[in-house]
This record gives sequence, C-alpha cells and structure tokens, in this order.
Amino acid sequence: MRIAVIGSGAVGCFYGARLARCGHDVRFLMRRDLAAVRQRGLSIRSPQGGFHLQAAAFGDPAEIGPVDLVLCALKATALDAAEGLIRPCVGPATRILVMINGFNIEERFAGWFGRDRIFGGLAFVCINRGEPGVVNHIDYGRVMFGHLLDNLPLAREVAGLFAEAGIETIIAPSLRQARWEKLMWNIPFSTVAVSAGGVTTREIMNDENLRRLAVRLIVETGTAGNADGCRIDVDGMVRKMTDDTGSMGPYRPSMLIDYQTKQPLEVEAILGEPVRRARELNVPVPTIETQYALVSFLDRLNRGEIRI
Amino acid sequence: MRIAVIGSGAVGCFYGARLARCGHDVRFLMRRDLAAVRQRGLSIRSPQGGFHLQAAAFGDPAEIGPVDLVLCALKATALDAAEGLIRPCVGPATRILVMINGFNIEERFAGWFGRDRIFGGLAFVCINRGEPGVVNHIDYGRVMFGHLLDNLPLAREVAGLFAEAGIETIIAPSLRQARWEKLMWNIPFSTVAVSAGGVTTREIMNDENLRRLAVRLIVETGTAGNADGCRIDVDGMVRKMTDDTGSMGPYRPSMLIDYQTKQPLEVEAILGEPVRRARELNVPVPTIETQYALVSFLDRLNRGEIRI
Repeated sequence: MRIAVIGSGAVGCFYGARLARCGHDVRFLMRRDLAAVRQRGLSIRSPQGGFHLQAAAFGDPAEIGPVDLVLCALKATALDAAEGLIRPCVGPATRILVMINGFNIEERFAGWFGRDRIFGGLAFVCINRGEPGVVNHIDYGRVMFGHLLDNLPLAREVAGLFAEAGIETIIAPSLRQARWEKLMWNIPFSTVAVSAGGVTTREIMNDENLRRLAVRLIVETGTAGNADGCRIDVDGMVRKMTDDTGSMGPYRPSMLIDYQTKQPLEVEAILGEPVRRARELNVPVPTIETQYALVSFLDRLNRGEIRI
Repeated sequence: MRIAVIGSGAVGCFYGARLARCGHDVRFLMRRDLAAVRQRGLSIRSPQGGFHLQAAAFGDPAEIGPVDLVLCALKATALDAAEGLIRPCVGPATRILVMINGFNIEERFAGWFGRDRIFGGLAFVCINRGEPGVVNHIDYGRVMFGHLLDNLPLAREVAGLFAEAGIETIIAPSLRQARWEKLMWNIPFSTVAVSAGGVTTREIMNDENLRRLAVRLIVETGTAGNADGCRIDVDGMVRKMTDDTGSMGPYRPSMLIDYQTKQPLEVEAILGEPVRRARELNVPVPTIETQYALVSFLDRLNRGEIRI
C-alpha cells in the first residue's frame, strides 16, 4: 500500500517507519529532517528494539502524488496548512488518518475532503525527536482508531494495517469520546507541565496541590465530554490517568518540549477548542479556563509575541 | 506618641516616616537597611512630594522597648517571627496595628497579645523599595483601618493618627469584609502577575483571557467572602477593581517583585488561607485553587526548594 506521511515529526516518523518496515511504500514529507534522512536514513531508537530505515523523504507533496492512505501527523499549530499539504496526495479513494492532538480536528479535515474518508488515530506513546533523522521512543505506543462517522468496519481496516506492523491497536466505538478521553491526559499533564514552570509528570504527581489540580482538570474534562454526548466513566478515568502517569517516571510532555524550545504550543487544539465546546454546552470548566488563559499567554510571551 | 515600626520594608518605612515627620517618636526595627539609614537617613521619593528623615533605626526590638503603638508591617512570610519581634515593645496599654497582606492575619496577633488591642491597617498604595534607605512611592496611599472586634471608636483613634500625618484614611465597619475586599485585588492581580510568567497589571488588563481570569478570581473571592458573613457588592467590586487597575498603568505587584528577586511569596496569606476558609465554608473556588497550586509550586521552584 502506498502511504504518505504528512508531518514527519516524532509521531509521523515512528509509525510511518514501522509501516515501511513491514513492506508498505511509505513516503515521508519532511522539512527539518529532509537532508539528514536523505543522507543517513531514519533511525528509531527504542528500549523495545530500535531499527534503521532508508526512508523515502520528500520536500514537496506534489512529488509524492496520490496515495492509498495519508497519515497526517502535523502539529495542531500547523493545521491551517494541512489542506494544501495533503491535497496533492489525495485521489478518489484516498483515506486520511489524522494523528493530531486536540479537539475538533477531524472535523476540519472533513470540511476539506468529505467525511467518509476521515479517520482519527490517537497515539498513546512517549516519544520525542532527537537530532535530525532520529526519533527516540521512550515507552508505550498503542494507537486507538476511529472513523469520523464511527463506521467500525472501516476503522478496523485502517487499524489492521498498523496491527500487521506490530503496533498495538484498539478501536474507538466513538471517535468523539476517544478525543475527550485523550484530553483527560493532555489537559491535566501537558498543560500543567507548562503552567507550573516547566516540570515533568513526576513533579505534578508528587506535589499535593498540583496533583489535586490535575485531578480537577480530569474531572472537568470528562464532565464536559459527557455533556457533549459521551459516556465517560469519569471516576474510573481519574484512577487510570493518575495510576498510569504515576508509574510513568519523569516524562516531559511534547507541549513542554515545545515550550522549552520556544515552538508554538498546541494550545487552541488542547485547551481552546474544548473550552469553547464547554461554553456552547453551558458546562462550567473554570479550571480548564484558567489553564487556557495562562498557557495561551505564556506561549505568546515565550515566543516574544508579547513584550513587557 | 512613641511608635515602633516592626518590619521596615516599603510600607513600614513609608507610613512610619510620615508619622515621624509630624512629630511622633517613631523607632524603626530594620534589617536590610539598618546601616544605610543610620548613615544617611531615610528617603521617601514620591511624585506627590518626597522628603528625607533622620530616622531612628534599631537592630533589636529590646532596644526600642515598650511603645504606645506597634505598627507591624512584616511580610506575611515572616509571620511566625512576629510575636518574638513585637513582644519587647508591648506594654499593658500598647496597641498593635497590623499592616500585613492576606487573610487570618490579625487573628494570629490576637492569639499572642489578646484581641482588644489588635487593629488592622490595609494600605492601598503602589510602592516599592529602592536602594537601602530609599522607598519609592508611585501612587495612591489610602489606608483602611479596622479594629479586630469592629470597635469603631477605637479604629477611629488609630486612623486619626494617620490622618493628622496627612494620610488619607477610611474606617472599615467590618475588618473581615475589608480583608476579603482587599483580596479581591491581590488574588487576581498579584497572583496572576506571577503565574502568567511575570507580567504587570497592564498585560493582565490588555489580554482578553487574562482579564477574564482576573474577573473570575474577583467573583470567586467575593462569593467566598459573602459566604463568610460579609455583604460585598461583588459586581460593583468587579467594576471598581478592573476600572482602578486599568487606569493604574503598568504596575508590578509586590508579589511579582518578590518572585523576580527570588524572595518567598506571601502565598499562604493571600491564597492558602482564603482557600482553606472557602473549603471550610463549602464554597467552590476552583480558579483560586488553581492559582494556589501553581503559585505555591512556582514559588518553591523559583527559590530552588524543588529541583527538577
């Protein structure tokens, strides 16, 4: 199968490389790593077994051309550029798998390419980029798949591709619920890592006040999700998120890495969109609103958009 | 009248110097500025007219001895040391005026010295310390006076001293309400100045999200105060606090100055105590709780108490 990876950051490279390793014709659209990967290939470092790939790296999606599957792993901050980057790779039967953090993401793609071909992939993986051409896989790797219209047979087809590549997969009966549930990790941990001064998950879990704050954020997120038509077991998710994160060791969420490297944060996708949805639903989310105000401001201050 | 200023920071020096200038025997307990003031005196710089004073500076409260009035202007972070510093200055008829930011402050003094002699003074003043021996007065200066038992004639006597020294005074019918109302400025502006990355009141007022956050903090504080028996006009206070602060220009609250100079923050007095009181009263204050978690953590991180 021919696959275009649009947005070859850590997530795009990691999953794209595994699909390539099991025989698919995977074409990576690259920017930062283009020259390095053409020269030295792509290296996945992982405690579960790393590998090296002579990856097909492209600088222009027109050179990739139409494919069977687009794996779009752009950062949410690049969402406005997604349509233009993907369009040259889309033929009549092309499916589009969106692996981007945040909320109201697939809906944007549906507006550009129609709803029937849009899939969401939610990666539960600790991963980051090393030097150009290198991805560091730290732990986990499961991907949850859903179809925008919750068509389960179609979701299973896309998930099957990943499962054949040795990736743990799971099907989301409701993509919307899966998105809310993923926010129940990203909102408490990714955003507090930034607002608490640049800390890992360990400091959040070890400080009594920050842990309480994280729990309040999980509860508010789940409550908003349920008001949005989901059936989330909020208490169960609080236990699961805190247990999983407590046993994770000191992890720097990608939002924190972006902050420390002065990259734009996925603040609208992870905080702004859920806050606006909660406002539409008249669900109070004061703690998420506070994180939104602070992280949005810190992001702009950090990148020199606001000067004092 | 003999007056001991215990805690000669910006507030203690500013008001103490004005009382001395109008003829009182004011004795300043000093630490950082002791040598400079003994050598060069105390300078108040102010757009409303500065002045210089050969201030009586002491390094030990035992040298000051019993006085008629103790003006205690220690930082709230030094509250545990207050009893020992004040005790040598207290005779049978000594009154104690507490000019310290925060909540549940006078109650601590009442436990040490009895309730009848305890007064609160809430300064509405933009002020900070310059080099040793210099205080920079920026704007405002009004002081609101209350007696711990809301004995208005006694409150008026203490206020009268300040009024004779040319200071604008006002009597608080309820000291508790006055404390809550002052928190309606300190909680939104002092603490967001820190959690939003080190910004002045201007950035808070100019950023839509931060201004909304400040307003939510004002409302939660007033709501908690009313649950604590006050009769605060919350909407009116929202207008007053935002109008006053909007016309204030770019002001760095003392909590921000402390943060930037890596001094301990008055986080328990300004956030911790109100949060605990709200919990006792079963009033939800999620936005204040969030600020408490973040600022408390940032304070310890900033001073190296937490290492990552």
